[in-house]
Amino acid sequence: MTLPEIAKLGHVALITPDLEKSLWFFRDVIGLEVTEEKEETIYMRAWGDFEHHTFSLKAGEKARVDHIGWKAKRPEDVQGFALLLEKAGTDVEWVKAGEETGQGEAIRFKLPSQHAFEIYYDMDKPLAEEDKRSVLKNQRYKSWRKGISPRRIDHVNIATSMDISQIHDYLADQLGFKLREYVSGESEPMKAAWLSVTNLVHDIALSPRPNAATPNQFHHISYWLDDSQDLLRAADILSEQGIKFIGPGKHGISQALYLYVMDPGSGCRVELFSGGYLIFEPDWEPIVWTEEERSVGNTYWGDTVQDKEENQLTIEA
Amino acid sequence: MTLPEIAKLGHVALITPDLEKSLWFFRDVIGLEVTEEKEETIYMRAWGDFEHHTFSLKAGEKARVDHIGWKAKRPEDVQGFALLLEKAGTDVEWVKAGEETGQGEAIRFKLPSQHAFEIYYDMDKPLAEEDKRSVLKNQRYKSWRKGISPRRIDHVNIATSMDISQIHDYLADQLGFKLREYVSGESEPMKAAWLSVTNLVHDIALSPRPNAATPNQFHHISYWLDDSQDLLRAADILSEQGIKFIGPGKHGISQALYLYVMDPGSGCRVELFSGGYLIFEPDWEPIVWTEEERSVGNTYWGDTVQDKEENQLTIEA
Amino acid sequence: MTLPEIAKLGHVALITPDLEKSLWFFRDVIGLEVTEEKEETIYMRAWGDFEHHTFSLKAGEKARVDHIGWKAKRPEDVQGFALLLEKAGTDVEWVKAGEETGQGEAIRFKLPSQHAFEIYYDMDKPLAEEDKRSVLKNQRYKSWRKGISPRRIDHVNIATSMDISQIHDYLADQLGFKLREYVSGESEPMKAAWLSVTNLVHDIALSPRPNAATPNQFHHISYWLDDSQDLLRAADILSEQGIKFIGPGKHGISQALYLYVMDPGSGCRVELFSGGYLIFEPDWEPIVWTEEERSVGNTYWGDTVQDKEENQLTIEA
Amino acid sequence: MTLPEIAKLGHVALITPDLEKSLWFFRDVIGLEVTEEKEETIYMRAWGDFEHHTFSLKAGEKARVDHIGWKAKRPEDVQGFALLLEKAGTDVEWVKAGEETGQGEAIRFKLPSQHAFEIYYDMDKPLAEEDKRSVLKNQRYKSWRKGISPRRIDHVNIATSMDISQIHDYLADQLGFKLREYVSGESEPMKAAWLSVTNLVHDIALSPRPNAATPNQFHHISYWLDDSQDLLRAADILSEQGIKFIGPGKHGISQALYLYVMDPGSGCRVELFSGGYLIFEPDWEPIVWTEEERSVGNTYWGDTVQDKEENQLTIEA
Repeated sequence: MTLPEIAKLGHVALITPDLEKSLWFFRDVIGLEVTEEKEETIYMRAWGDFEHHTFSLKAGEKARVDHIGWKAKRPEDVQGFALLLEKAGTDVEWVKAGEETGQGEAIRFKLPSQHAFEIYYDMDKPLAEEDKRSVLKNQRYKSWRKGISPRRIDHVNIATSMDISQIHDYLADQLGFKLREYVSGESEPMKAAWLSVTNLVHDIALSPRPNAATPNQFHHISYWLDDSQDLLRAADILSEQGIKFIGPGKHGISQALYLYVMDPGSGCRVELFSGGYLIFEPDWEPIVWTEEERSVGNTYWGDTVQDKEENQLTIEA
Repeated sequence: MTLPEIAKLGHVALITPDLEKSLWFFRDVIGLEVTEEKEETIYMRAWGDFEHHTFSLKAGEKARVDHIGWKAKRPEDVQGFALLLEKAGTDVEWVKAGEETGQGEAIRFKLPSQHAFEIYYDMDKPLAEEDKRSVLKNQRYKSWRKGISPRRIDHVNIATSMDISQIHDYLADQLGFKLREYVSGESEPMKAAWLSVTNLVHDIALSPRPNAATPNQFHHISYWLDDSQDLLRAADILSEQGIKFIGPGKHGISQALYLYVMDPGSGCRVELFSGGYLIFEPDWEPIVWTEEERSVGNTYWGDTVQDKEENQLTIEA
Repeated sequence: MTLPEIAKLGHVALITPDLEKSLWFFRDVIGLEVTEEKEETIYMRAWGDFEHHTFSLKAGEKARVDHIGWKAKRPEDVQGFALLLEKAGTDVEWVKAGEETGQGEAIRFKLPSQHAFEIYYDMDKPLAEEDKRSVLKNQRYKSWRKGISPRRIDHVNIATSMDISQIHDYLADQLGFKLREYVSGESEPMKAAWLSVTNLVHDIALSPRPNAATPNQFHHISYWLDDSQDLLRAADILSEQGIKFIGPGKHGISQALYLYVMDPGSGCRVELFSGGYLIFEPDWEPIVWTEEERSVGNTYWGDTVQDKEENQLTIEA
Repeated sequence: MTLPEIAKLGHVALITPDLEKSLWFFRDVIGLEVTEEKEETIYMRAWGDFEHHTFSLKAGEKARVDHIGWKAKRPEDVQGFALLLEKAGTDVEWVKAGEETGQGEAIRFKLPSQHAFEIYYDMDKPLAEEDKRSVLKNQRYKSWRKGISPRRIDHVNIATSMDISQIHDYLADQLGFKLREYVSGESEPMKAAWLSVTNLVHDIALSPRPNAATPNQFHHISYWLDDSQDLLRAADILSEQGIKFIGPGKHGISQALYLYVMDPGSGCRVELFSGGYLIFEPDWEPIVWTEEERSVGNTYWGDTVQDKEENQLTIEA
């Protein structure tokens, strides 16, 4: 039997204690488009995303990521993963078609770190409303309609108090993620890791958060901008709204430019992301950064990620 | 048995009647790095390419592309493709390890259009010489060392007088390429096509050249730049060298920015390329452009590709 | 007595036969801010303009530029110019303070080519409404609020069927403009000219239009964008609105990047402008371009200005 | 009599204890062009500078700025300034034509803070050597030939332990500089100031350095880049050379983007500068920033200027 495979990151489902403020932030400041509002959930996507949603917002007492959705490569892979995961001792819960709007039958389960994942295959790819629709046939919405206006979802970064290499192994062995870059510690083989199933350097990153109260921490969701100048424009837009951020800077790891900004409604961190490299090599050897090299890996140049108050807040995933 | 798969575009081997001028163009103007010179072949790559070469130059009487190299996904896929292709009636020629410098055992064969392809798996990934080496562990050369300084090879575009859909079928059926976008004519189902095995919109494009003397025409090789501003900088650099080009403009198809420039040594066209979208969807439905929509597909805005003298010259592949 | 001097280009007052469409174009697509609507005139400016208006719209039967406003260097220079111009045989008409909203006492007069100019000194510099106000003390509006979002007015280009050198002489001798670059013809000493009173290469350009029905033709008003990438973003925004344009390209003369687009309401051409050089030299020797060099002067690279239908329409000034 | 006027910043003459390293930095990394070497002085300029030099290097025991050169508006203004300054009690020293290569007769004198200024009018504007010459008639060198490749000199920033307002008064009263922006302290009326004679926000800035051993400190020389993306490219180039820098960031004051980097040979700081606004208003009211607002004035966003070790080093002017 062909092993089931994940094709791509699908979406992040965020619970926010301040729906109004989070909606303002993601819709008006970041500039995501609202696809649909249904049963108290607001489904959103970037102008270049094709699927029904890459992000959703729902009100809740406490900010947290409800689940991270991944699209399987083939229709039968949802069932395939269910079997494989259960066999490996993971509890799998089925989600009925339509329970998440636009989405077919899916499964949900938790990583050893208790991060909630979802795997689906079927997902609507609705066109945009006519007045918002791009004149290009290969693009859903007109670009640059509002706010920062990123093109598409890029990746997620999850944090944990657990041993990173253990989570890496689960992602690699059960879900087929390939290790692209990692930081090795003196005593630990893996202190942070970047993995992907696509040509991106990472669809998911694993960050250490040794003193977190729970192992299932969420670090950030990332949206992509085509040009580095778009990131500088984002810095202007955020500053005019009185919203603080970290960046601009350039990661050594991934070589991408970044801006980190927090949703004032939920505390969920968003990374605006541009540039970087792609990995086409099937025989890729993971890049290893030592503890000493880590600061260059984090910030090659620019405003540093480290030691900023803005970087200490956290929500669970 | 698992079907053999292609992982990525590897390289283009160019024969030029004016080696000195072509070398000047690709090394000093485009800014490729020379990896090695051996047996009258000069092997080159961009600063962000990992493999030994993504381009090579060799002197010859007439300008032509000797072959287009593709990297297989697994070591056994070279043999796998050999069996499969021979079974399908394609003549397969084996290339010994080292015959092409840095490369392991490979096969060569011709498309029905007589375009020469090569499939390899093993390829050296040498570091750069120390004085040219990047301080980043995931990057071969320092960027911006000279000339236009593209990051990496992006795609090839081949042209033919044959029925495009026939070549498409061969690429799809024998080699596993997926159709991403295409132009449909009134009488012909397919007048131009963009296909890929990666998340790029195209690793290869098929262009019509109905009146060409031979069916195996080469349209261009493309190198990638991270930012659209890099393309405008390229326009300055080319202009200062007195080299004409087409662009800048934006394709509707692929949504990428372009600049087309011809190697004055060989007449081989190079597309400098930036922006555009990626395809992560396993259930991608090819975008179809009608004859009428084709001009927007070719040039969404900017300097048009059509009807320029510079666009009429051609070499064989 | 100190000669009166012009400090800068102030504004362009446009009459449009389709106020609604012109308002949509300048406010929503170009992204100018409306300062005030008074007595059927809509006063506008860019987010980085300080004065009350740099552009105004008023309905009228036929599209035309009512006048081009220039700010004098000293309060007494308005009177100074009045005396000087009358002495030189130019009819001068006084405009009362407040007749043009936000503006003090001013004079209006016509060039030999019948282009209507206005010279003022006093002009309000209102802050933006609070919700639109920049957090920066040296900037009126938040940038990037909407549309293309240029920073400021840059220059005007007027066209005429008259001898260009005659208009140049008037601008130089009566108004103190300095010649920066020009095109010389075989039989005519001056076929096009770029002049300024500031460090810009031109605050005003003179273009030939030999066959125009009247000598007072308007070529375009130009707004400035900080980055060349902003111009490419403008190209996306215009394309999504189905608005055609010329560009992007780079002028040899001025070295600036351009995009030419026409207000669909009036036919008034707008040049979006970025880059280029500044002239600080008091002993500047005008750059002369021969007829032969003119095409490089017009379009160093990119989409050419010449021979486009979009470039043939014209309005009077 | 017409008061003498300064037209623009001319050049900075730097003495360096490590000529070889400084030459490498300014010529190969920053990318300035060497116009001439004469009598142990190396004269340099950017590709878009017109005059013979905007920077010079000479070996000396201790790093210091020998003088800052300013171009007068009219030939007679050199003499005019001499008379005016002497009348005001300033010692004026005459520099013979040719003593500084390419330059006519000039005067040198010291500010009350002991910063050495030079005023000249005549200066050669040599073309570039043919192989380096731009194809554009209004541009000296081909752009993008090497290194960071800035377009032109922009401004100087001098620091002092003296009362800033006293230096401001001297610049305004004796030399005609106009105050554009300043920081006001609680007890002091002026803690930092930005002044210009051109449309730039500043040709010169005054920075406090209360504890400096001497009052004549040099803060930095600045070179201009057209696009913000050019600044990010500069960050890559510097990083690849192992050279640390501050930025990228955006000033509130001037609204320009910055990168601060130190010449490893002399410790002389260079600001790479892009964007920002121009001042055309003759009735400009200086923007005042309170102590509290100062941090936004210094760094609107990005990597902050404050409290970096790299920012503490200093040389005299």
